[in-house]
Amino acid sequence: MREFDLLRSVYRRNALLPGFVRVPPGDDMAVLELADPTVLVAVDQVVAGRHVRPDEDPALVGRKAVARNVSDVAAMAAVPTATVVACLLPTDYGERRALDLFEGLRSSAQVFGCPLVGGDLAVHADASAPLVVSVTILAAPAWPGARCVERTGAVVGAGLYATGAFGRSLDRDGGGHHLRFEPRVREGIELLRMLGPRLCSMIDVSDGLGRDAAHLVEHDAALAVELDAAAIPRRHGASLEEALGDGEDYELLFTATGPVPSEVCGTPVTRIGSITQRHDGGAMVVAVEEGGRRFDATSAGWEHRTR
Amino acid sequence: MREFDLLRSVYRRNALLPGFVRVPPGDDMAVLELADPTVLVAVDQVVAGRHVRPDEDPALVGRKAVARNVSDVAAMAAVPTATVVACLLPTDYGERRALDLFEGLRSSAQVFGCPLVGGDLAVHADASAPLVVSVTILAAPAWPGARCVERTGAVVGAGLYATGAFGRSLDRDGGGHHLRFEPRVREGIELLRMLGPRLCSMIDVSDGLGRDAAHLVEHDAALAVELDAAAIPRRHGASLEEALGDGEDYELLFTATGPVPSEVCGTPVTRIGSITQRHDGGAMVVAVEEGGRRFDATSAGWEHRTR
Repeated sequence: MREFDLLRSVYRRNALLPGFVRVPPGDDMAVLELADPTVLVAVDQVVAGRHVRPDEDPALVGRKAVARNVSDVAAMAAVPTATVVACLLPTDYGERRALDLFEGLRSSAQVFGCPLVGGDLAVHADASAPLVVSVTILAAPAWPGARCVERTGAVVGAGLYATGAFGRSLDRDGGGHHLRFEPRVREGIELLRMLGPRLCSMIDVSDGLGRDAAHLVEHDAALAVELDAAAIPRRHGASLEEALGDGEDYELLFTATGPVPSEVCGTPVTRIGSITQRHDGGAMVVAVEEGGRRFDATSAGWEHRTR
Repeated sequence: MREFDLLRSVYRRNALLPGFVRVPPGDDMAVLELADPTVLVAVDQVVAGRHVRPDEDPALVGRKAVARNVSDVAAMAAVPTATVVACLLPTDYGERRALDLFEGLRSSAQVFGCPLVGGDLAVHADASAPLVVSVTILAAPAWPGARCVERTGAVVGAGLYATGAFGRSLDRDGGGHHLRFEPRVREGIELLRMLGPRLCSMIDVSDGLGRDAAHLVEHDAALAVELDAAAIPRRHGASLEEALGDGEDYELLFTATGPVPSEVCGTPVTRIGSITQRHDGGAMVVAVEEGGRRFDATSAGWEHRTR
């Protein structure tokens, strides 16, 4: 099947494309008539063998590629608007899987409110090369003039809170959370609405709780995170190490001053630590266990390296 | 070098980030304060071994990945606004090349007026897997309320015009046009300004002149393109077949009624054919040679297929 036919057959199912898509997929660019000139943008990729198993259901791979971008939108307390995708297929991927993948992308983008408005498709020259799905997402402020909640903004004394639970996201016995999670968009917006300026900063946990907690303080050498290890909700019997380091949780992690509700939009919210002063040479993220043992949790999690 | 450090060291050179970038790279999403709520978006990828040689200069690979997206902007007669990039590096790519690649992306995006405001970096698990660079570009109408010129819009009797010359773009002896071309942004906008509604439709030539000409008529079974083979300007001694099929020319191809200037912004503009009626079962694109020989040029060019 030719690229053009494949993409067209997918776009045809975009019957519900909203009116703001003035030039739909199929031209050099899509044209969107947005309500707000404030535009948020981010890109994220899913690589087979890295972020998903090479034999994973293509429809779930497509869903994950969209959902992890929607999770970034949630972390800004924003609203998803639209997506575009670049796919690089293994030479032997086949038309059936390609269609399932694109339909997974298209339908989940529609469900998450960010219709797929453009795509690029290429096929690897080398048979052993992996599937790569790169999604770019656009988003808008939660309401006209609403604040976009950044990673910076934590203050000493603020509480550190998380939605949901952590660890074993990649565990198949645990239901494959990393393939099926619901991005916390409504929760992010509701937190902003309820807490207003008391919501200091926010991030979503993809690399790992330890590493992502560090992202909330790394901009300011005077700030550290102190995690209450016992308070961290764990998924499906995860160990503390798994909860801190597995990543792919796609939960919201935020700092706030004053009272914070114990649930938002039906999702539990747990206080798992606080923002403290960082001392010279001190760790950015310290986990404190019940017996009082303290350890550096800054590097708990995943990061790509170049050799 | 860790992903975060690498991206940060690149973003640091973004000293000239314009004021409309309200939240710069490094957060979950970049936040842009655009002047116009009409937003154009497209994505395109460069794959080593497919679009560039595996041993190509990383800085030129980065430039090409941005420039081919800017060429899509030119084809809409729009103005580039911002870019984000997802990169997947071979395991043995090394820090030096990674930095050169990202600096090529960043600096060319800046030169083309669409600063790099976000990125995602991953490293292949498999050593033999190729470099993949996927760029998403945002753009704005040429002026407030300006039309975005679509691929559709050709009418019978309109002339078919092209900027520049065609063929042998990948030829190293020819200067490596595909790595060094200047996207026709100014030309696209000037054509819209000069021709107004007489500029019927436009596309940029990446897949090949024959195939991209077909994109101007494929939406309407009553339209065909008749190419005047002798009139097609050829690059560096290219044959007719090379001019029709090589692709990667990144020139503008447009249809217009009435007089059209022979150059725009110093770039030559050539009438290379016209829009005619397509007859039942007739080819979408017919090339007519000087002796009167006619042949189907619809499929002259490159397209990815899935098996």
